[in-house]
Amino acid sequence: MIGYNFMGKAHSNAWRQAGRFFDLPAEVELRTLCGRNPAAVEKARVQLGWERAVTDWRAVIEDPEIDIVDVSTPNDTHAEIAIAALRAGKAVLCEKPLAMDVGECEAMVEAARKAKVVNMVCHNYRRIPAIALARQMIEAGELGDRIYHYRARYAQDWITDPEFPLVWRLQSKIAGSGTHGDINAHIIDLGRYLVGEFAEVCGTLETFIKQRPVLSGTGAGLSAKKGRKLGKVTVDDAVSLIGRFKSGAMASLEATRFAYGRKNHITLEINGSKGSLAFNFEDMNRLQFFSAEDPADRRGFRDILVTEGTHPYAGNWWPPGHIIGYEHTFVHTFADFVKAVVAGRSVQPTFLDGLRNQQVLEAVEQSAKTRQWVRLP
Amino acid sequence: MIGYNFMGKAHSNAWRQAGRFFDLPAEVELRTLCGRNPAAVEKARVQLGWERAVTDWRAVIEDPEIDIVDVSTPNDTHAEIAIAALRAGKAVLCEKPLAMDVGECEAMVEAARKAKVVNMVCHNYRRIPAIALARQMIEAGELGDRIYHYRARYAQDWITDPEFPLVWRLQSKIAGSGTHGDINAHIIDLGRYLVGEFAEVCGTLETFIKQRPVLSGTGAGLSAKKGRKLGKVTVDDAVSLIGRFKSGAMASLEATRFAYGRKNHITLEINGSKGSLAFNFEDMNRLQFFSAEDPADRRGFRDILVTEGTHPYAGNWWPPGHIIGYEHTFVHTFADFVKAVVAGRSVQPTFLDGLRNQQVLEAVEQSAKTRQWVRLP
Amino acid sequence: MIGYNFMGKAHSNAWRQAGRFFDLPAEVELRTLCGRNPAAVEKARVQLGWERAVTDWRAVIEDPEIDIVDVSTPNDTHAEIAIAALRAGKAVLCEKPLAMDVGECEAMVEAARKAKVVNMVCHNYRRIPAIALARQMIEAGELGDRIYHYRARYAQDWITDPEFPLVWRLQSKIAGSGTHGDINAHIIDLGRYLVGEFAEVCGTLETFIKQRPVLSGTGAGLSAKKGRKLGKVTVDDAVSLIGRFKSGAMASLEATRFAYGRKNHITLEINGSKGSLAFNFEDMNRLQFFSAEDPADRRGFRDILVTEGTHPYAGNWWPPGHIIGYEHTFVHTFADFVKAVVAGRSVQPTFLDGLRNQQVLEAVEQSAKTRQWVRLP
Amino acid sequence: MIGYNFMGKAHSNAWRQAGRFFDLPAEVELRTLCGRNPAAVEKARVQLGWERAVTDWRAVIEDPEIDIVDVSTPNDTHAEIAIAALRAGKAVLCEKPLAMDVGECEAMVEAARKAKVVNMVCHNYRRIPAIALARQMIEAGELGDRIYHYRARYAQDWITDPEFPLVWRLQSKIAGSGTHGDINAHIIDLGRYLVGEFAEVCGTLETFIKQRPVLSGTGAGLSAKKGRKLGKVTVDDAVSLIGRFKSGAMASLEATRFAYGRKNHITLEINGSKGSLAFNFEDMNRLQFFSAEDPADRRGFRDILVTEGTHPYAGNWWPPGHIIGYEHTFVHTFADFVKAVVAGRSVQPTFLDGLRNQQVLEAVEQSAKTRQWVRLP
Repeated sequence: MIGYNFMGKAHSNAWRQAGRFFDLPAEVELRTLCGRNPAAVEKARVQLGWERAVTDWRAVIEDPEIDIVDVSTPNDTHAEIAIAALRAGKAVLCEKPLAMDVGECEAMVEAARKAKVVNMVCHNYRRIPAIALARQMIEAGELGDRIYHYRARYAQDWITDPEFPLVWRLQSKIAGSGTHGDINAHIIDLGRYLVGEFAEVCGTLETFIKQRPVLSGTGAGLSAKKGRKLGKVTVDDAVSLIGRFKSGAMASLEATRFAYGRKNHITLEINGSKGSLAFNFEDMNRLQFFSAEDPADRRGFRDILVTEGTHPYAGNWWPPGHIIGYEHTFVHTFADFVKAVVAGRSVQPTFLDGLRNQQVLEAVEQSAKTRQWVRLP
Repeated sequence: MIGYNFMGKAHSNAWRQAGRFFDLPAEVELRTLCGRNPAAVEKARVQLGWERAVTDWRAVIEDPEIDIVDVSTPNDTHAEIAIAALRAGKAVLCEKPLAMDVGECEAMVEAARKAKVVNMVCHNYRRIPAIALARQMIEAGELGDRIYHYRARYAQDWITDPEFPLVWRLQSKIAGSGTHGDINAHIIDLGRYLVGEFAEVCGTLETFIKQRPVLSGTGAGLSAKKGRKLGKVTVDDAVSLIGRFKSGAMASLEATRFAYGRKNHITLEINGSKGSLAFNFEDMNRLQFFSAEDPADRRGFRDILVTEGTHPYAGNWWPPGHIIGYEHTFVHTFADFVKAVVAGRSVQPTFLDGLRNQQVLEAVEQSAKTRQWVRLP
Repeated sequence: MIGYNFMGKAHSNAWRQAGRFFDLPAEVELRTLCGRNPAAVEKARVQLGWERAVTDWRAVIEDPEIDIVDVSTPNDTHAEIAIAALRAGKAVLCEKPLAMDVGECEAMVEAARKAKVVNMVCHNYRRIPAIALARQMIEAGELGDRIYHYRARYAQDWITDPEFPLVWRLQSKIAGSGTHGDINAHIIDLGRYLVGEFAEVCGTLETFIKQRPVLSGTGAGLSAKKGRKLGKVTVDDAVSLIGRFKSGAMASLEATRFAYGRKNHITLEINGSKGSLAFNFEDMNRLQFFSAEDPADRRGFRDILVTEGTHPYAGNWWPPGHIIGYEHTFVHTFADFVKAVVAGRSVQPTFLDGLRNQQVLEAVEQSAKTRQWVRLP
Repeated sequence: MIGYNFMGKAHSNAWRQAGRFFDLPAEVELRTLCGRNPAAVEKARVQLGWERAVTDWRAVIEDPEIDIVDVSTPNDTHAEIAIAALRAGKAVLCEKPLAMDVGECEAMVEAARKAKVVNMVCHNYRRIPAIALARQMIEAGELGDRIYHYRARYAQDWITDPEFPLVWRLQSKIAGSGTHGDINAHIIDLGRYLVGEFAEVCGTLETFIKQRPVLSGTGAGLSAKKGRKLGKVTVDDAVSLIGRFKSGAMASLEATRFAYGRKNHITLEINGSKGSLAFNFEDMNRLQFFSAEDPADRRGFRDILVTEGTHPYAGNWWPPGHIIGYEHTFVHTFADFVKAVVAGRSVQPTFLDGLRNQQVLEAVEQSAKTRQWVRLP
């Protein structure tokens, strides 16, 4: 694994847990952790449970003992590392967003195509049991043969306070993007997964708080000093968009970090010609399902507690009614990835999904600039 | 209508509205309002919309123009007035509780039997559309051929504050009973309506705040004075009981006025051999229904919004999704009563239901005294 | 009252009930009901409880006994009737939408200005107690000095079935508009009421089912024949839009009649610099409130049951926890209107609000045609 | 760890994860797994990740390298093993119920007292963050100085079908107890944890389905054969009880395996003189809190999402809004246990809590037999 910050903790846990709860065709060994700072990577190695630490990612790629490379570095290094890993014949799991722009993504897709190795972009929310069940239900026709609406919202509140400082995530040079690339990307991916490809979009970006206190010192702390300097926020705080899928379904999406009380609030609703589905990540073990085929006076949204043995992934954990949490989505993703790698078959979402996602992101950005609708390729 | 306090407002409204929203076989005329205080009853007459006011209830019963007598007086006068009205051949609708004790209730049932006129005790919650639907569903076998559990709770919070004064409802001489007779009676009735007759009960009563500030002056105001006198609370604040129905189902009931945040919180859950139902009065337009016959991975409580034209009573009001409220339960009750009176047929809940309810209430009281289980007749 | 269809039932009820539950400075008499079809209007008169029926609306306007004219006719007659009534010095309450276009609305505003009489457009949802409370809370600063987001959705499902016939509401000549003008108008008005004026919008309209079975016969029934003719749907089925308020707040709105399971589902969320509010019309007695000023580890959306005596309008009905329903919003509106008429002072929402609402509606329509953002005046 | 079935999976996971997410004063090594069946225990060892497997629990207790013994065996062996481990100076963590009866529990408490080692009974639900927060809030006086009501329900549905076979949990010789000892024990413990000691109880037990299909073969499968034999169910299916705490608070508890749609549904509500708390295990990351100290018109149950850094345990996992699940409760429990063992200080719930819990369980059983109230010691 290359990179070890926020995603490092979740990824290491998933590599460790996958084989304990899923019947994998191979044993997962947490061999090498890679990071640029020798002291920090060694500390992380111990905490996260890896065998050894290195500071040059090329050492990972050149290690013939290593079959899988997990790219969890900052976004601006994804393309270079992943392409090198693909060329070295490693199976590659890359954190989202796949890369910095469509061009980089295209190069990665091309490299994956040539290398003929298993490649995956880590859109872990696809493997929330409720979301996987939603996909199964849509494929089984439970919503009918036509989808009318996909609406989704990803709302957080952690930077609503104007005194919240100018952390790296609010600086475009480091973070690459703001709310749009970081969290809107997730609900775009879920739209693609559940409904299909986007045809056209029209959106707008907003930065509500344009200047924030500069962090003193190393950036380790979050509290800003009095008599402080202000620095410019260079990413978006919120994005909203309307759009259409190629199927004709309408899309309405919104992402924000300015919705007090919403912590990691991913809400979806899909309306089809035979029924509807609704989901809220903060209650991620539940899926709401309305079927127009229920008798007229007994209809209502069914509150499905997705913890049954018959539900995707859930049976590998605990008995019905015993819920699971955030990190389990990574365990599911990584278990499926390992199975695919051993079997040598493709597993969604591939780098191509990462590219398509990036295309939608950039179309929205372009629309925000031109104030017009933009068609997807 | 005899009596015009809290229930007078709701009853007058129901008499007025019934014919506007339901196709009744006769026109309802709000003829005479009766109360002991001439000035107060005249004021109420104007406010509530009655043609004339009298101070002697016998005048109502002797009026040959009057077909229906609505007994909404304090509980200790129900028996006398209702029996006189029955003997006069009037159809009688009596507020709950039917009377002060089983003996009185028996006399009323006997009088009704002899008079052969339509008689009804006003357990209006039976005609919440969601409750009426629940009854239909149970009768249609949606919960299976066996009920395992009935649990119900009626929780309020209006006397939680020890400074809340000693109003008439907290004095047994005037109110007759406390939480048990006033609100527990409702969930006992709903249990009888939805599940069947009780076989045995074991319960306990509690008065948490034994003394409260005496109201100064006429009792019109609720705020107690400083340097105040305390008076003894002579009714129960809360009751809890366990029991069994004759069918073998278990019962668990609780009523309290000491549950902060619960305003008129009547929650029910019924579990049967094929499914479950759940209800909350504060969301009275909804009924939760779990069917074990739904496919294994698509099961969940259905949140039925009981506002469809196919639902009981709901179609007489507004289009789907436009909810109704508390007073509508009286309109439904009175509309059904008027239809029954014109048709000359019985309509539930009759005085016999009032008697059976009283038997359960008294069995719980006896159990609370003896600290043992008590069998119902 | 001129017009007596769907809104006639709700309006008549409100005129009848207002004085029963609110202390009005004048008694409301339901004098004249007006409709073009003599038999139908007479039948409606009896059912709805009016003193007399006429077929020419001019007779209403010329009646010196009449102080208030309630315009509940089809939309294309609002302007003519209302202007005539205003000129006759009547106080005018007009159903929404105020008129067919901005031009008509402007003429009505001008006529009202000249006549100096009380004028109101019937956006009844403003007087849902929870919405009125939301307004009070925002004005009191509970959400902070800055609003970031207003999102709203009005979702129904009554025409999702393609076999649902071509009723008048789906024909632009009769209905004037579809989802956009009928229901999106409500959430635009609530946005204006709660957040302020719109600055710019960008939206899109959609008609999912372009042809529907033509109703045989008189149009009274809804079931279409087999071997049926299809006719063209000439209104929109759904609309979605993004926008900005003059305050800088972002807007995201959506209205549809194609969301299975959503019956009259008006959901709002407003996020401000100190807190958030959320509302769902299908649970209209509740308001969700998140305050960032609560202690850090005790924060959460408060589920306020808006039935307390301290809440707007609620105290006029029943004790806490006894909910009210749809038609009560009209009672509140009409009670406030009567008070304003007697006092001779303005009461919101005035015809000017109707005009502003129409301006937003037309800006969205223009945007849908040009596929660009449109600025409001 | 001695024993490796259902609890073995959850316990092994917790031992493995505790040090990854909590800063422990010692490293946890999963040294020895013990079970009677050599092949099965070896298979479990590999799956669960232990270093070695043994078949005699004495080998564990005699191993000087072992500091902590985790007793996860069937209930009838808890006392013997735990007492031996205590005498050997091991810190002992014992699954609930602590033992088969009050006598065994007393012997264990006595052994722990003499051994002066850290002892804990694994009531893991105490360390659900929402429950730990509830305890903090009650201790901080958020509910006031007096608790009026504790009501709790533990509902499951896994044996509602009469065709569900006679598994070991339904046979008293093996399981020791049914619903009462298995799940009612949890809500009794939570009552003791949150409200205090019970003073008196009155309860009833029920076995709804008295005979069930005998499992053919080894008992590994759950599906019963046609033409099957029936065997007697020797444990209770459901229990309900009323009671009082020493503080005067009323208790109402219910546990059942016959509530269709309720999977692992532990619902609690506590009402105090200043507020209320409510909890549902199926939404275990949330706590509902009503404070009577909120302004009169802004009161409501706050839906606290217990995932903040300021909440107990939650900060060790993921950012706000990223929920955790069932197994995390064991991780919290074991982390606290390890800290206590290293520090040599007591940690709740101790064996004494296990004893007190058993006393309540037996009092309810006695009450069910005598049909009278039973006082606790």
